[in-house]
Order: sequence, then C-alpha cells, then structure tokens
Amino acid sequence: MVDLPTPPKPRGRYRPVIVHRGVAYVSGQVSRDENEVTLTGIAAGEADIPAAQEAARRSMLRCLSVLSDAIGGLDAVEQVLMVRGFIRSAPDFIHHPKVMDAASDVLIDALGETRGQHARAAVGVASLPSGGMLEIELSVALRA
Amino acid sequence: MVDLPTPPKPRGRYRPVIVHRGVAYVSGQVSRDENEVTLTGIAAGEADIPAAQEAARRSMLRCLSVLSDAIGGLDAVEQVLMVRGFIRSAPDFIHHPKVMDAASDVLIDALGETRGQHARAAVGVASLPSGGMLEIELSVALRA
Amino acid sequence: MVDLPTPPKPRGRYRPVIVHRGVAYVSGQVSRDENEVTLTGIAAGEADIPAAQEAARRSMLRCLSVLSDAIGGLDAVEQVLMVRGFIRSAPDFIHHPKVMDAASDVLIDALGETRGQHARAAVGVASLPSGGMLEIELSVALRA
Repeated sequence: MVDLPTPPKPRGRYRPVIVHRGVAYVSGQVSRDENEVTLTGIAAGEADIPAAQEAARRSMLRCLSVLSDAIGGLDAVEQVLMVRGFIRSAPDFIHHPKVMDAASDVLIDALGETRGQHARAAVGVASLPSGGMLEIELSVALRA
Repeated sequence: MVDLPTPPKPRGRYRPVIVHRGVAYVSGQVSRDENEVTLTGIAAGEADIPAAQEAARRSMLRCLSVLSDAIGGLDAVEQVLMVRGFIRSAPDFIHHPKVMDAASDVLIDALGETRGQHARAAVGVASLPSGGMLEIELSVALRA
Repeated sequence: MVDLPTPPKPRGRYRPVIVHRGVAYVSGQVSRDENEVTLTGIAAGEADIPAAQEAARRSMLRCLSVLSDAIGGLDAVEQVLMVRGFIRSAPDFIHHPKVMDAASDVLIDALGETRGQHARAAVGVASLPSGGMLEIELSVALRA
C-alpha cells in the first residue's frame, strides 16, 4: 500500500482534477515533498537518476493524492489510462524510462498490476514550474 | 464575453479539431495575432511574464476559435477537460502557472466558471513552430 | 499500404497500449529502425528536416505496430483522435509542422483520409529517451 500526502491545492486558475463521463483528468503535479518544498534540479546524466526517481515518486504521489481526494478514494479507479512524465533535463539526458519507472512503480503499488498498468510517454523539457525536476499528469477511468 | 479571431487554418496535414463521441480534441495552437503574425520569444525570467501571458491569451483565443468553428458555437461545450500549455523557455524559467493563468482566464471568461473550469499541465519546452512563445492544446466534452 | 515493423517491447514498467471503453492509448514511441537502432540527433535548422522527417516516420510506424498488435489489426480503428509529436531540438528550430507532416502522412497512408485524419500538437523538447530525435504518442477510437 501507498501512503498519500495531503492533497495539494492548485497554484493557479485550474482544478486539480476534472471528472467527466467516467474519466478523471489529473492536472500536472510538480515534484514537491509533504511540506510543499519543491524537489528541484536538472537531469543531466546517470548520476542524476536517483534524484530524478525520487522526484518522479513525489510527483506521482501528489497525482494520486488529488485524484483520491476528488473521487472519494482510489477504490473508485477502474483502470489507469495514460501517464505523461516531463523531466527537466540537459540535452544529453537519455535515462527517461528508468526515471519514470519509479513513478510507474508507485502507481502499480497503489492500484495493483491490473488497474495500475498504463500507457506512458516520457520526454525531457527545458523548464518546469518552481524549478521542479519533474512533472506528471495522468488520466484514469472510473468504475461505473 | 470573448471576441474570437477568424479560425486559423492548420499549417500541415492535420485537422484543427477532431470531434468524436462527444469529445473535441483541439490541435496545438501557437501564439499568433489576428493577422497571423507569430508572437515569438523565450520566457527567461520575471520580466518576460507579461509577454508570455499575452502569448497565452492569443493561443487560447485561437483554440476557442477553431473549436467554435468545428462545433457550431461555444454553446455546444458541456465541460472543458484538459488544457496543456507549452512555454518556450530558458532552463531557469519558473513562472509557468502565472503565464498559463492568462489562458485559463480567457477560457473561464468565454465559458463561465462551471463549464470553463479545467485540469491543466504547463511545461517549458525547447522550441515551438515558427519560433512561437507558447502553444496550447485542449480537450472538451460536448453536450449530448 | 504501409509495412509495419515487428511490435517493439516497452522499455520500462508500462504497457505499449491501453485499450479501454473503445479508445486505445498508445505509449510514446521513440524513433528507432527495424533493428531497434535509435535514430538520434537534434533538429537545429532547415538542414535537419529530412533526418527529422525520417525519425517521425519511424516513430509513427512503431506506434501503428504496437497499436495493430494490441487491437488485432488496423481494421479495428474507427478514427484517430490526437497525435502528439516531441522533437528533440535546439532553441531556434521552427520547422515542427514540416517534420510532423511526415508522420501524419504515414498515418493517412495506413488508415485513409477519413479514419486517419487527426488533431495534432508538435513541440520541441530538450531531451528524449536514448537520445532519440523524435517521440510520438497518440490516441485512437476503435469500432464498437
């Protein structure tokens, strides 16, 4: 099981989650710890993988926290659909899959192998809000 | 209310909007003015926020224009689902939420607080078509 | 018609395709050839367009290959919905539409003008897995 942080409030004029016709759309969550301190940094090479993985775990935990808060607990999730990971990175960074696997593991730990399995895209971006090292957004199908 | 520009034509082998089973998928719209002049630039620091916000407004107006054209007016929108903002930026840019709030405001002005509320992701990218400062894409649920 | 490569295996803890309630979500596919050799590079200027177009074609062929494998052939596709292209690029690159048109052409060749038409977003990113030049993800509606 996974211990979720307090659901963070959005930092702008959007909603953390929109639920419509059985699908929940979760807003991008930047890597921050339970005290809202941002995990910053740029992934440049192999030595940065552990820090980026920790950032990925934190971003995913925040996604699950706002999702659970919006739908009344994760039991309402039928199937994760798509996960997108944006890693703040230097041009030569190549280890996106290893980094995002840390987020995928959190998802599968929280929801199990069947409901937690998902499609995924991972890319390296130039910058992120608050200088965060990672941002994740996802969409999830809910039980009827 | 919001005054929409003439719906821009796509600049490639894609459709500005796909409508399928009650959801409209709006192609990425780069920041351009009503004369199709691109709002270019790179968001590097706090001083660039106003220009990036203007770019965000322009991108969102173009999204709403092609959407309205495809579905016969914005009354057909039931609920905005997800908005994605890509800001051309330097590695240290951190003000993505302030920039994208300008786009979210346009959406809420056009559709109201209920239909216009949305989930959102905002990231900083390395480059954009035509050197644009900003690109927005979104998905929207339509009335049955 | 289009000749699809062998469906590549995912390089991490995710599924190549999730199918749910009539929509297939295809994971990001990096530009690689039929021997899994990555087409690397950074799109910096006009001279890089042909290499980036070839990368776009390869990424799209891999998307179609995993999709076809997951749904039992492309006849099951009713309509492509959204295509997202991430081009590894320098800050001054501006030719994203020309590059992504090569991917759109593959899609339309494989599915025809009606089923293959799609909404699209194209942005330039800082880095991609394995140093790939391009990554594409897409979503597709399936026949009932």
